[in-house]
Amino acid sequence: MLTVYSDRHTLHHAHAEPFGGTVVEPFECPQRAEYVLARLREVGLGPVNTPADHGLEPILRVHDAGYVQFLQTVWADWTAAGFSGQVTPSVWPGRTMPFRRPSSHIEARVGYHALCGETGIVEGTWEAAYWSAQAALTALDAVLAGDRAAFALCRPPGHHAPKDQYGGYCFLNNAAIAAQAALDRGAQRVAVLDVDFHHGNGTQEIFYDRSDVLFLSLHGTPDQAYPYFMGWEDETGSGDGAGFTANYPLPAGTPYSVWKQALEQALDRIRDYAPDLLVISLGLDTYEQDPISFFKLTAADYLDYGGLLAGLTLPTLFVMEGGYAVEDLGINTVNVLQGFETVAGGRP
Amino acid sequence: MLTVYSDRHTLHHAHAEPFGGTVVEPFECPQRAEYVLARLREVGLGPVNTPADHGLEPILRVHDAGYVQFLQTVWADWTAAGFSGQVTPSVWPGRTMPFRRPSSHIEARVGYHALCGETGIVEGTWEAAYWSAQAALTALDAVLAGDRAAFALCRPPGHHAPKDQYGGYCFLNNAAIAAQAALDRGAQRVAVLDVDFHHGNGTQEIFYDRSDVLFLSLHGTPDQAYPYFMGWEDETGSGDGAGFTANYPLPAGTPYSVWKQALEQALDRIRDYAPDLLVISLGLDTYEQDPISFFKLTAADYLDYGGLLAGLTLPTLFVMEGGYAVEDLGINTVNVLQGFETVAGGRP
Ligand SMILES: [Zn+2]
Ligand SMILES: [Zn+2]
Repeated sequence: MLTVYSDRHTLHHAHAEPFGGTVVEPFECPQRAEYVLARLREVGLGPVNTPADHGLEPILRVHDAGYVQFLQTVWADWTAAGFSGQVTPSVWPGRTMPFRRPSSHIEARVGYHALCGETGIVEGTWEAAYWSAQAALTALDAVLAGDRAAFALCRPPGHHAPKDQYGGYCFLNNAAIAAQAALDRGAQRVAVLDVDFHHGNGTQEIFYDRSDVLFLSLHGTPDQAYPYFMGWEDETGSGDGAGFTANYPLPAGTPYSVWKQALEQALDRIRDYAPDLLVISLGLDTYEQDPISFFKLTAADYLDYGGLLAGLTLPTLFVMEGGYAVEDLGINTVNVLQGFETVAGGRP
Repeated sequence: MLTVYSDRHTLHHAHAEPFGGTVVEPFECPQRAEYVLARLREVGLGPVNTPADHGLEPILRVHDAGYVQFLQTVWADWTAAGFSGQVTPSVWPGRTMPFRRPSSHIEARVGYHALCGETGIVEGTWEAAYWSAQAALTALDAVLAGDRAAFALCRPPGHHAPKDQYGGYCFLNNAAIAAQAALDRGAQRVAVLDVDFHHGNGTQEIFYDRSDVLFLSLHGTPDQAYPYFMGWEDETGSGDGAGFTANYPLPAGTPYSVWKQALEQALDRIRDYAPDLLVISLGLDTYEQDPISFFKLTAADYLDYGGLLAGLTLPTLFVMEGGYAVEDLGINTVNVLQGFETVAGGRP
């Protein structure tokens, strides 16, 4: 299986993450991608290509132009205001203070575009996010050209980013950008299956009122897990998209046996939908040792469900999302891909 | 003039404030109240009483019961979750992720009740906020009993707190609680004039649809100043409250000559309204040396506008809000009160 990877991900390295009332080393760190890269080279998964540049256009098919411009300029505006460190939201439009009109102050613009507070922006964040999206688009090229599957080793991840916000370590929604690009290049229907521990709120928001993308997410119940305010079972789409969103919230301590039942329900939904392409938002924070999550999957379980995904016999694009048990992240990620290849019959 | 003050404000002392991409000593610090106390003793402004306990009832006339319970229990719940440091919001219901239903996780409950991110909650925050509100209620007692004016040396401040959120260093809206208590004790109309540098978004939200409280605020324009998303000139009230909110946003660098023109417009509005009581949300961050604000008032200007307030010849309750040029805060605050007394004719 082809992997697409850009070392420019290292340009995004937040210094600190507010967590539990103190400040910690960011869970979403450059080492994550390095562990995955090392492991897939170790097992000889296949070639590792650098992304081709598809430009801004496919990004702007998903994200608002004003938001993209914000990401491009926020660091310069932040430092021009005399601020330093990393871009951090301080105040945002919310329940009692809804958005009425733009304020030109950099703090207001950051608060407008911030989904939450743990994600710092530094000087190189835009460039890293841009090439992360290009990795997804380049891996898509391979699948559209006939590869059974390809793996976009994206960092930063993307599934929490809606049309015009960043947060949850995400800036550009790589999976959504790839799904939209597939539609724009002839696919009639795309399914995006999000197996990250966290609800893919960004992807859901982007496609919520559309029927040409079926979005499915298995995740920790919002009652107990980030992002808390989205991912309930009764969120099923609206308008033309009614019935084309499916959420499978699961409680703390969920073992693979239970998670797998939800996965099989999701796979049935995908079979019924009969998409031209399957995009997997591949988060490995379902792992039993993940430091910020609470499912109980083991390394062997990743091999197993990789095979189940292959059983759909669909062209499949894997897009890297979360996973914070860094030292085991390579093994777990590559286990999914190897499990897939075992059933799918290896690389084309 | 009577001052009401509780030393329990020191129980609220956040350790750190996220600011400009790094973390700083909180601008809203216990020393603020101590400087004011020292200065009013130095000039012999009048007696300093401790607050009488009016209980929760007058607080619950303004704030939601669920919010009050949250403030009472958040520290225990935070530490029970294994968190430490100070309570800090991480994710909130916002534009792309509106509030659908409660999540029981402590991070979700904090995000639900947080207006913004700079304000830390520590173990003693509730007790300090409770007695700050009691100080406002006790100073109100004096005014309702016939004093020409009284000063509630409240800390933490209150004007940013709406019915069920904290932020901007505020937890309970002391001015709003006092205004509501005055109504509950026979006043027909109360005017709340907010002269803090920042828009009194909490007070506005609490009384926005009511005509029995006229709310007026002079502040840095939302285009340039916190809270950025509220305080525009065209926010004038809704429903029964239409026309009973008045905002005077002013640009960076505003000198007293310009600020005073806005004040005089506000005073005209108050005269027309003919309230039974005037509550002043007294913030001194309009000062030219304030570290987080951008008006250009000088110490002498506070004497002057104190006199203008007295010119309304209304029973007047001063409630302490912001002001972060700590060493000059005592002089500036007491200048307003002395300016008032000079015109009003000293203490009764
Ligand atoms: Zn995740
Ligand atoms: Zn202020």
